[in-house]
Amino acid sequence: MVSRGEFCSAVLAVFFEYDTNKIVHIKSKKVGLINRFIQLVIIVYIVGYVIVYKKGYQEFQEPYSSVTTKVKGVSLTNLSQQLALYGGVHVWDSSDFVIPPEEDNAVFVMTNMIISPNQTQSTCPEDPKFPNVKCTKDSDCPPLKPVENGHGLRTGKCVLSDREKNKKVCEIYSWCPVEIDELPMPGNNPSKHMPLLGAAKDFTLLVKNNVQFPKFQETARNIKSTGNASYLKGCHYDPKTDPLCPIFKFDKMFELANITFEDIAFQGGVMAIIIKWNCNFDPLAYSCEPKYQFTRLDDSKSPIAPGYNFRFAKYYVKDNVLYRTLLKAYGIRFAILVYGEGGKFSPIPLFLNLGSGLALLGVATVLCDIVVLYVLQKKYFYREK
Amino acid sequence: MVSRGEFCSAVLAVFFEYDTNKIVHIKSKKVGLINRFIQLVIIVYIVGYVIVYKKGYQEFQEPYSSVTTKVKGVSLTNLSQQLALYGGVHVWDSSDFVIPPEEDNAVFVMTNMIISPNQTQSTCPEDPKFPNVKCTKDSDCPPLKPVENGHGLRTGKCVLSDREKNKKVCEIYSWCPVEIDELPMPGNNPSKHMPLLGAAKDFTLLVKNNVQFPKFQETARNIKSTGNASYLKGCHYDPKTDPLCPIFKFDKMFELANITFEDIAFQGGVMAIIIKWNCNFDPLAYSCEPKYQFTRLDDSKSPIAPGYNFRFAKYYVKDNVLYRTLLKAYGIRFAILVYGEGGKFSPIPLFLNLGSGLALLGVATVLCDIVVLYVLQKKYFYREK
Amino acid sequence: MVSRGEFCSAVLAVFFEYDTNKIVHIKSKKVGLINRFIQLVIIVYIVGYVIVYKKGYQEFQEPYSSVTTKVKGVSLTNLSQQLALYGGVHVWDSSDFVIPPEEDNAVFVMTNMIISPNQTQSTCPEDPKFPNVKCTKDSDCPPLKPVENGHGLRTGKCVLSDREKNKKVCEIYSWCPVEIDELPMPGNNPSKHMPLLGAAKDFTLLVKNNVQFPKFQETARNIKSTGNASYLKGCHYDPKTDPLCPIFKFDKMFELANITFEDIAFQGGVMAIIIKWNCNFDPLAYSCEPKYQFTRLDDSKSPIAPGYNFRFAKYYVKDNVLYRTLLKAYGIRFAILVYGEGGKFSPIPLFLNLGSGLALLGVATVLCDIVVLYVLQKKYFYREK
Repeated sequence: MVSRGEFCSAVLAVFFEYDTNKIVHIKSKKVGLINRFIQLVIIVYIVGYVIVYKKGYQEFQEPYSSVTTKVKGVSLTNLSQQLALYGGVHVWDSSDFVIPPEEDNAVFVMTNMIISPNQTQSTCPEDPKFPNVKCTKDSDCPPLKPVENGHGLRTGKCVLSDREKNKKVCEIYSWCPVEIDELPMPGNNPSKHMPLLGAAKDFTLLVKNNVQFPKFQETARNIKSTGNASYLKGCHYDPKTDPLCPIFKFDKMFELANITFEDIAFQGGVMAIIIKWNCNFDPLAYSCEPKYQFTRLDDSKSPIAPGYNFRFAKYYVKDNVLYRTLLKAYGIRFAILVYGEGGKFSPIPLFLNLGSGLALLGVATVLCDIVVLYVLQKKYFYREK
Repeated sequence: MVSRGEFCSAVLAVFFEYDTNKIVHIKSKKVGLINRFIQLVIIVYIVGYVIVYKKGYQEFQEPYSSVTTKVKGVSLTNLSQQLALYGGVHVWDSSDFVIPPEEDNAVFVMTNMIISPNQTQSTCPEDPKFPNVKCTKDSDCPPLKPVENGHGLRTGKCVLSDREKNKKVCEIYSWCPVEIDELPMPGNNPSKHMPLLGAAKDFTLLVKNNVQFPKFQETARNIKSTGNASYLKGCHYDPKTDPLCPIFKFDKMFELANITFEDIAFQGGVMAIIIKWNCNFDPLAYSCEPKYQFTRLDDSKSPIAPGYNFRFAKYYVKDNVLYRTLLKAYGIRFAILVYGEGGKFSPIPLFLNLGSGLALLGVATVLCDIVVLYVLQKKYFYREK
Repeated sequence: MVSRGEFCSAVLAVFFEYDTNKIVHIKSKKVGLINRFIQLVIIVYIVGYVIVYKKGYQEFQEPYSSVTTKVKGVSLTNLSQQLALYGGVHVWDSSDFVIPPEEDNAVFVMTNMIISPNQTQSTCPEDPKFPNVKCTKDSDCPPLKPVENGHGLRTGKCVLSDREKNKKVCEIYSWCPVEIDELPMPGNNPSKHMPLLGAAKDFTLLVKNNVQFPKFQETARNIKSTGNASYLKGCHYDPKTDPLCPIFKFDKMFELANITFEDIAFQGGVMAIIIKWNCNFDPLAYSCEPKYQFTRLDDSKSPIAPGYNFRFAKYYVKDNVLYRTLLKAYGIRFAILVYGEGGKFSPIPLFLNLGSGLALLGVATVLCDIVVLYVLQKKYFYREK
């Protein structure tokens, strides 16, 4: 058994002794230069690229974001009087063309539409454009079978179409009369591919974005409370002259995204408003400002359902009968995507990068050892040592 | 003081000299094997698992996503004529049962409902099911005190219920008559737990998803513009035969999520459509395709508010009085969750992993040193050295 | 050429030999203590801070989340009879003041409003508050030019204002009469800055949150299916007494966010309900519970568009004319932000941290070498060795 005194002195020895590697001192310009050069490259990579350029001393977080929007503008249509409530001169303001009135991180602005007025629950001939609705006799129309992708369920009768002369189609239970799914609507369009709400070009969009970095307990807004109110109220975003103005003119956004208004407004489409936050929360280098980018997200040449549209209905009651006006809304969906990251000093990534870098520095020595041991001429001499 | 010449030669010496550790060469099969084995394990771990299998040479980013949807289908109800505008044969199409008409990353399809027609602002007896509304005299009903979770504010009167015979309840200011909160509604339901819009089983959902990886300046879509249009228009997703078709039949989704249509459609529920992108943007191994998964998110056995429903109203005016039809909509909320990551070669994670791995290799030497110094028999000999 | 036997024995030699550094054993209390202290600091940092405290042995993922909400409450207004359909005693329930009826990760509750009843498509004088609408003669009003941020397009006539006596303004095509954009509305407000739906203070919000961690194939809900149903139905969240109750009273949330109800409800605002999940999926330390936090997101002192509001319209038809009631809705937008992360043991981060830490331990030796070589008194002796 080990006596207590011996044990203690052994423990103390461990604490008070120090082992270091015995070093062989080699004087060789070649080996020295190679060694220093490899070390230099690694140090420059670690310190210059990883730590300084890529901010390897910081911990990062992507922002949590909340976006609210406001669209301003009015547009006028002068559609044919057949469109009942929407015929003649009709002014559209933001509560008419922003649907739904608010969304999180997105806003939809209707720029074109197909209006089907005065629909009621009844029976009527289906649109002959659908497959499997043409018929010659009643038995071609199995009762209560829905028309695929169509407007209703077959009643079991084969009737004359109200659209194409002398063609017989299945009669359906539906909201009648069924929609005429064709653009443009008859009316005031000067050109064939001009959207109905052509004034949308001049609409403006106000974006209020609040980002949070809970890891650092930091928060930032795209509208500074120290801003100049009268400037902010009247400004329009421009990447060069007004890069921090939060009000965007539609045509400016399309210009910056390299698309034309007619392209996206006639058939609809999805635009991304990208807000990039690159925030540095280190006290000495504090900066946190958004950058805006614009790009079209959807594929205008998509093989199915190109553009962007959806249908919605407005209901009303007349003489105790439920009516609806069906609108097929084409328009621009702005998706506001908040990118970026905030960084703040943290010892963990710094030491992780440093430690990893030091290990890489070890590579230099290993490589040199190889050079010294196996490549250089005087190798036998060194190996002996 | 050091002379300039001395200083320079000292500096040069540092650059042209090279220190390497003096190495003790030990010939021992045991120690050598242990050492090589530990090194092998570490190298296999670093190179095989971390770098190759887990793609340790890549930088990753989760995608930023934009999703739009389109639901197609029609369903027919034949409710009792008491339901005024909604009684009798009534066809529901997507603009009726998709509420709101569009949402970001989600779509709600109403499959069941409670309709409360012809409500007006007035006074009426509260539903006796609520606590604290039963009364025997007017003083049990403090005026203007709201009924907890109820339909209105007490008027101060105690009146006979319109629902339960010979029961007295507080009268309230409310939209009257108040909703009868019971499923199913009287009508065409063949079975007790069949949702009203039973045809929803055969509805289809088109999902258009655009993902972006700003770090790599890459973008991808679930509908390829090079796709076969006629195929895409008619296809239905199937994990085996049509894994890239973006049109989903409702019953297929429920089947893949292991739930039945009746379960989720009668009481409502939340389904996740998970789109997994695993993209590799390295030029030689470029691949970026979505995978779809389906799962039910909500807890059908939740102790409070199981299923999914919400109320909304349709307003109309008759004889200068505001009316509303209140709908309690039960249905399926599809949340489209976009998961995954894109990866691309980057030196930082590669060198981080390599550096860290080299450091681990050092562990092998340390372990062997321990073995050599303290464990093996010839230790005294080695320590001396 | 090397014979096969020679080659084999050389390869075997590599496998069965082992190089270790020759060690210089230095007995010095000073150097030993410094060395041990630096090593101790690094080990405590790596093991104690990085690995244990910061869970360096775990892989993390932020949750994917789905949130649904339900608001309960009723409020009563008694506005002037001029407001047509909304005049007199009017009860507002959740289907009236939650707009739209459902949203993903958010809910808007209207607390104040400006109602513009009975608007029709027609011509009327613009609100004189807008710039460039005051006029003296018709030529001041270029026809079809829209009023900037205004309600319509100029007809070309200069007419008397219906708002300010003896002032002439441009006539516009618009929904007429145009909105009187002033708070508060004439009616039952006891104080000047009391929102119309003052009872919103007592509304409750039920939040159902489902989070997923696909990396670990884990899922969690804020309402446990094992919960006590009767407790959950009646409870109200309180950070101390009911920290897991998913029903939030509005005034409790404002109290916890350090704001007053009147502040946010009169002009509107954006509140964040932050749900923090800190989940540990390691089998022995399994825990996954949400924590709730409340904070106001928007800047009540924003230089432009302070507060939160949006306009929406309700349409109706009378005598074949389309009417609308325009509501400018002020209210509280609750954005439900789901933060946090789930962690589970993974060898990659553990070995990454260990490897990096071992490399840092190397720093200790390097520092000691420097001390030994250049600083301590007996240096000449050691260098010789």
